[in-house]
Formats: sequence, structure tokens, C-alpha cells
Amino acid sequence: MISLESIILLLVIFLCGDSFSLYNRIITCHIKSGSHLSMSVSSHTTRVKRNFNFSKLSGGYLFPEIGRRRDAFLSANPSIKDRIISLGIGDTTLPIPPYILSGLIKGATKLGTKEGYTGYGAEKGRYDLRALIANNIYPKDMIRPDEVFVSDGAKCDIMRIQQMFGPDVRSAVQDPSYPVYVDTSVMMGQTGTLNNHTGQYENILYMPCTPENNFFPDYAAMNQRADIIYICSPNNPTGAVATHSHLSSLIKACKEKGSILVYDAAYAPFIRSPGIPKSIFEIDGARDVAVEVNSWSKYAGFTGVRLGWTVIPSSLKFSDGSLVKDDFNRVMTTAFNGASNISQEGGMACLTKEGQKEISQLIDYYLYNANLLKHTMEELGYIVYGGTDAPYIFLKLPPGTSSWDAFTDILERVQVITIPGAGFGPGGEGYLRLSAFAPRCDVEMACNRMKEKFSVKK
Amino acid sequence: MISLESIILLLVIFLCGDSFSLYNRIITCHIKSGSHLSMSVSSHTTRVKRNFNFSKLSGGYLFPEIGRRRDAFLSANPSIKDRIISLGIGDTTLPIPPYILSGLIKGATKLGTKEGYTGYGAEKGRYDLRALIANNIYPKDMIRPDEVFVSDGAKCDIMRIQQMFGPDVRSAVQDPSYPVYVDTSVMMGQTGTLNNHTGQYENILYMPCTPENNFFPDYAAMNQRADIIYICSPNNPTGAVATHSHLSSLIKACKEKGSILVYDAAYAPFIRSPGIPKSIFEIDGARDVAVEVNSWSKYAGFTGVRLGWTVIPSSLKFSDGSLVKDDFNRVMTTAFNGASNISQEGGMACLTKEGQKEISQLIDYYLYNANLLKHTMEELGYIVYGGTDAPYIFLKLPPGTSSWDAFTDILERVQVITIPGAGFGPGGEGYLRLSAFAPRCDVEMACNRMKEKFSVKK
Repeated sequence: MISLESIILLLVIFLCGDSFSLYNRIITCHIKSGSHLSMSVSSHTTRVKRNFNFSKLSGGYLFPEIGRRRDAFLSANPSIKDRIISLGIGDTTLPIPPYILSGLIKGATKLGTKEGYTGYGAEKGRYDLRALIANNIYPKDMIRPDEVFVSDGAKCDIMRIQQMFGPDVRSAVQDPSYPVYVDTSVMMGQTGTLNNHTGQYENILYMPCTPENNFFPDYAAMNQRADIIYICSPNNPTGAVATHSHLSSLIKACKEKGSILVYDAAYAPFIRSPGIPKSIFEIDGARDVAVEVNSWSKYAGFTGVRLGWTVIPSSLKFSDGSLVKDDFNRVMTTAFNGASNISQEGGMACLTKEGQKEISQLIDYYLYNANLLKHTMEELGYIVYGGTDAPYIFLKLPPGTSSWDAFTDILERVQVITIPGAGFGPGGEGYLRLSAFAPRCDVEMACNRMKEKFSVKK
Repeated sequence: MISLESIILLLVIFLCGDSFSLYNRIITCHIKSGSHLSMSVSSHTTRVKRNFNFSKLSGGYLFPEIGRRRDAFLSANPSIKDRIISLGIGDTTLPIPPYILSGLIKGATKLGTKEGYTGYGAEKGRYDLRALIANNIYPKDMIRPDEVFVSDGAKCDIMRIQQMFGPDVRSAVQDPSYPVYVDTSVMMGQTGTLNNHTGQYENILYMPCTPENNFFPDYAAMNQRADIIYICSPNNPTGAVATHSHLSSLIKACKEKGSILVYDAAYAPFIRSPGIPKSIFEIDGARDVAVEVNSWSKYAGFTGVRLGWTVIPSSLKFSDGSLVKDDFNRVMTTAFNGASNISQEGGMACLTKEGQKEISQLIDYYLYNANLLKHTMEELGYIVYGGTDAPYIFLKLPPGTSSWDAFTDILERVQVITIPGAGFGPGGEGYLRLSAFAPRCDVEMACNRMKEKFSVKK
């Protein structure tokens, strides 16, 4: 006997009349009819012009793009879904250790009590947290609590810094570099269009970073000037670290050229080699030219919790003598409402002795991973950079190999996700970045698979 | 016997040679010497020009300014510190209720386990949360999960929306309005300078909101056009709510003029009067012209937790036919890293039946406060707006009274903090905003004190 439901179903299939599977047909029909109500008027376009700066951006933001390519590969090869190992986006994977976790739980729990409840805090963060950051992380008496701005992370702070500098500055970046510096410069209207030949945007100063200069640019020697210089050390993606002499020369050059240095120290605690500066404020004169951006994401496991900070010294001034700190404060109060009070309580726990010990153990773990990756790839005959004082390995590909091709090749042959160097700017072509933030067993498995399938040795 | 420490102390006091207390002298000396190292080079100014748009901003952001005036009053009158009652900034004061709290605690606790740990999520929020928002808050089949962007709050989203629209649009605001719409327009370079005579920025369309138009502007009747229209309902600061007819007319006008409506519905659940729309997407045609901004801050007690969302329909297009949603997604992925995963777990709890019940009780409480304030001020002979479907009371001051003067007068005479209407734009002059978010006992005490000291009745 044919049920009423079956008749309706057949009717639906008939009316839809396309070649999808039965299930898909029904779903499609449902979406079509569901959308009918809402989409029936979609021929309207507003008269609002698209922000021209956005049309200059090339493709999507790098990391979601990697995700899209992984997903495309998986839908074409659903059977090997479980084999995928990600050494791609630098996302932490170890649970948050007990003491720091207790800070987060305390932060949440106290919101249920009359005494512990807090609403809007200072937009720049709790005073006690800012004081701990100022006193525990920087050289003695170097940074004051009112120069510290607690935030929801370094990436967000870079956008707010760009917001403050506005459209009329010229930025300089390391090439390759973390894509946010370039993309936000474009979005703010500081640049011209992308030159398809060079892969560079007009009006950004690209400072080449190669093995020859230890991936650190010699800004002093360049005959060009930029207003804002973005430097990241330990570097994402190259894993290189800037020495005291690198940074002294840079500060000197910034002073001479009247530039402002935005120093991204998000990976600073990964530095274990003695004598390497962990903060730009260890360098003489930095207070006059530098801003430092930081984050707990990578070493306290806070990639999802969201907590970071930016330091802007009171002695950093625009050309008219006004304080950079005051304008950044205006951005923070007008366009931000503070990091989550729960995350901030977690930050307080990070800065205790117990918290620091736990962070140190997390870093040990990820640096061990980095070391495994480094040695495996070296064993295979690759030239490898980074991985010593940084959680990233920067792998030199054989001459003539495009980094997106290598990305695809590795994904297809050993199901390991990496990041093509070209995603970090034209200077990254010919390299791959491997992240050490995966679980140990994944790193070991990835190493074994690569040993089986890849070798540039004769 | 005089100890070595005492000698040093006396020497320090002698060298400092000012008239502060002993303790202050030592602290001052410490700061001076501590600062010496870092500030000795502060004569340097960079060659980076201050962002001209920031120089157009008048004074500080409103709410920190209120805090500064309160602190100044307290330092002049330290003895009455305990008497201060804040009906100023709309900051929630009730603890987070148990079920929603359990969501936050769960969100924190799971980060300590291998299975429960999460790092970077989708920058636009967890899919299940976006699906719950789409399905539970909006009319059936009206909004799809991929049109929902979960964020750290409405204020932050407004900045990101401005970032997307860029410098070349003209904005329209209700006058008075939440100051963030104007301030971020100025910061993005959409405006000219402040006209000190009118109190208005050039190139912003100020739409007068007065008792005569029920505080809702008639955009259709205006012979001017703006690209972006910011409307808030229930309104901050007036407490007025837009009716179905108001919003239908507005959508029609936006469609005819090719404008985009940014609808701030952060207070929507406070609407209790039947027939008043709680979302712009209850209005026909809204999907073609409107964006809606929302927040859990005010009714789930999340002012400090930080969680909100923005809906951008796929049918909303720029004049070139490109999707507004795609550009907003670019801002979210490039310049934001997602709301805290702990806060998002709290958002999941908010959208359960238990969570909704708790939210309803919180709203009951604050609306009862609003009612108390409204009736008290009416009893005293004031004309009062709002306070029925909104947590704000908008109080008409006697003719000729400046709102900053009234703010100061009330602070001095009854130690109650309010917000001067002029802080919300020139159209707010002659009004005061009172917030209902204080604890009940504070609201009652404020009402009693005002009954004693203030009356406009003969």
C-alpha cells in the first residue's frame, strides 16, 4: 500500500525534477521553499558603494582558505577523513593545565555571586592584571600599568592599531610575514592595488627576509622610509628570532627615520636560547619608538579563550607631539568593551608562579614537537629554519617547487596539512610552514609518513 | 640607635625635598627615579602624523568621561564615597543566574580535558550557536545560520561594520543616539569636523527624535539621503520603541533611497508590549536593506562576559551587486578571532528553555526598577519617557536646564549618577538618562533621596 507520505514525497521529487539523490532533492526543495519567502525580493541592490579598499584584497584570509582547501579535499576523498593531520594553522591542542584552568573556572563561578559579579570593566582591562603584566613581564620600572591595554588577542589589537593610525600612513612588513599586517593595511586604505606581477601591494614597503639576512631585514640600510614597521619575533612564519643587535639597529633606524615599530611578541616565551630579547623594551630607546603586541593564545592554550595585551609607552608620540597611547585609548573605549572578565581571571592565574610553571611545561611540549619536525625534515634532506626558539618550522622546498603545489602534494600523499609559504607574501614562495602545535602522536605520525614518502636525499 | 635604613630614608626625604607625607615622598621619589631610566629620552617625537580623523573627536568617549567626573567629585568629597548610587552607565548588576552560569562554568571546565578542549573556532562563531540563534530568535525560515556572526558584543560589531563600510559613506543617526555610531563614523573618516555651534559633525545626517515624533525619525519625509542609517530600538537613550508602522515606513524609505539600515536590537527582549517588533526581520523587505546587531550583555548579565551577534542577510548587496555579508566575513576572519569559547558556551545555555526563563526573570527585575524610577519621577512632576519596554528612563528637564548642570546638581545633592542627555548628541540636551540596571535597593534609595530633594511640582 502506498502511504500518503510516499505520495507527497514522490510529488516533491517530481516537482523538483533535478538529478540529485532522493535525500538531496528533498533538502534542496526545502531550502528552495524556505528561502522563497525571504529571498523573493533579492533582486534589490542598495545604492551603497562597496568599500573600494575591500575590492583590493586578494582572495580570502589565508587560514580560512586553508580550511576550505582541506574541506574540498575531504569531500572528494571522504574515506581518508580520519587520516588528516593538521600541522597547518597554529592552533594549540593541549588542554589548559589545572592551575590556569582553575583561574578560568573561578572567573566564571564568581559571576554567579553578588560579591563576585562584574559587568563592564575598564575597557583596557582590570588594573591588577595590567599591573602584573607591567611588573612581571617587562624589565624593572620600564612599563607602567597605564601603558598596558588588555585585549581579546593580538590579531584584534593589530586591527585596532591600524584603526588608530588610519589611512594616511605607509606600513612596512617583513616578507614573508603574518598576513594580518598586510590585509589590515589594505582594508584601512593605506595601500594601492595588488601588483599581480610582484604579488605586492602598492605603498607597502616589503622588507625581504631570507636565509642570507637571517630572516631579519636591515631597515637602516634601506633607502626607503615607512611610518609603521611591523616586526614579529619569534617570527611567524619563519621561526627566526631577532637578536639584540638586530633590534638595537632597528630601534636606531626607527628613531632616525621617525618610524613607529609595532613589535609582535606573541611567541616570546618560546625563546629558550640565552641572550635573545623577549621584549622590545629590553632594547635602549624602545620606549620612544615602539609598541608591543602580545597574546596568551599560544603558550597558555588561550587560542579559544581570547586574551592578549598591547603596551604603548607614554613617551611614544605622533609628529605633533600628541601621545599615541591617548589615541589608542580612544579606540579601546569607543570601539571595544574589554576582554571577557572570565578570560582576564585566567590571565591573573597565568601570571602566578604556578601558572608560569604550567606555561613553561606547555612550551616544553610544543618545542619538543618542533624539534621532532625539524630533525625529521633535516633527515630527509631538507633545509629547515626555525623550530628552536619558535613553534614553527620553515621548510625550504626544492628549487622550482611552488608552495601551493607542495601543500597539495603533501595533503594528497600523506594527508598532512601545512601552510604554503606564499600565503605569507611573495617572499614565502618556495617554503612551507609546519606548526608544532599538534598533539605529539600526530606529530610523530606525520614524521613517520613523511619519512616513508618524502625524501630529497639522493 | 639610628639604623642604616633610617639614614637612607632621611637622605631620600631630604633629596626629594617636597611637602608630601613621608610615604608619598618615598613613593614619589621611587616613581621619579623609576621613570628616569625610561623617560629620559622622551623628547623624541616620531615623524608619523596623527590620524586626522582622531583630532576631530570631541573629548573622550562619553561613559569613561562620566567615570572621570564621578572620580573627581569623590576626591573632592571623600567622606560621602559610600553614598554614591549609579544610575549612569547601563551596566548590569545582578549575578548571572544558575543555569546560564552552569553553561559558562562548563565552557571553562571542558577546556581542561583532551576531548573538551577547543582552540580557534570559526571566527564567526560555533555553528550550533549560530543555528540556535537563527532558528530560535528570528521568524521561521527567515535567517540562516551562515547569516549569523557571533561576536564579543554589539559595540565591537558596530566598529567592525564601520570598518567594512569604510570612509566614503554617509551615515545617519537618531539625535540623540548611542554615541558609538557617531564616534566610529568620525574615526573612520566619514565626517567633516565638529560644528561647535550646532554640536553636529559635518556629513552626518542627524535625524531629530523628539516627543513629537515619538523619538522615531521619519526618514521617508527627509529630503536628504544617507548610505547607512543607524536605528536603535528599544532606544538608548530615550527608551522609546519603534512600532511596526515606524519600521515598515523606514524599510520602504531605505529601499527607495538605496540605504542600508543598521538596526541595533540589543535591548529587544525588554519589549513586553504586544505587537511591538523585536527584530527588524519581522518587517517585510528587511532582508534586502537591513543588518541587525544584538547582544546578550543587558539581559543575560553578559556585560563583562562579552557575547553578541550580528545578522547580515545574503540578500543585502552593495551597489555593484556584491554581498555585504562577504565583506563582513572578511573583517571577521582578518581582524577578529571569534568570541571566547567560554562565552559561547554561555550563549548556548541562554538559548535553552531554562536559560530563556532565567533571562525573562532578569528582565522582570530590571523593568520593575524602570517602573519605580518612572513613577517616582512622574510623581515629582517630571515628564518621563521610556521605562516601559526599555531599561532606560529619559527625563525631560525643566526648560533652560543644561543636562550637564543637572547631572552635576544631582550628583552633588543626592549622590546619584545619571547620564546627561547632551552626551548622546545635541538632540539630547534638556534630558537626563537614568539606567534601571542598578540593584533594587539602590534604585529605591535613589528614588527616596530624589523625593526628598527634587520636585518640579508647585
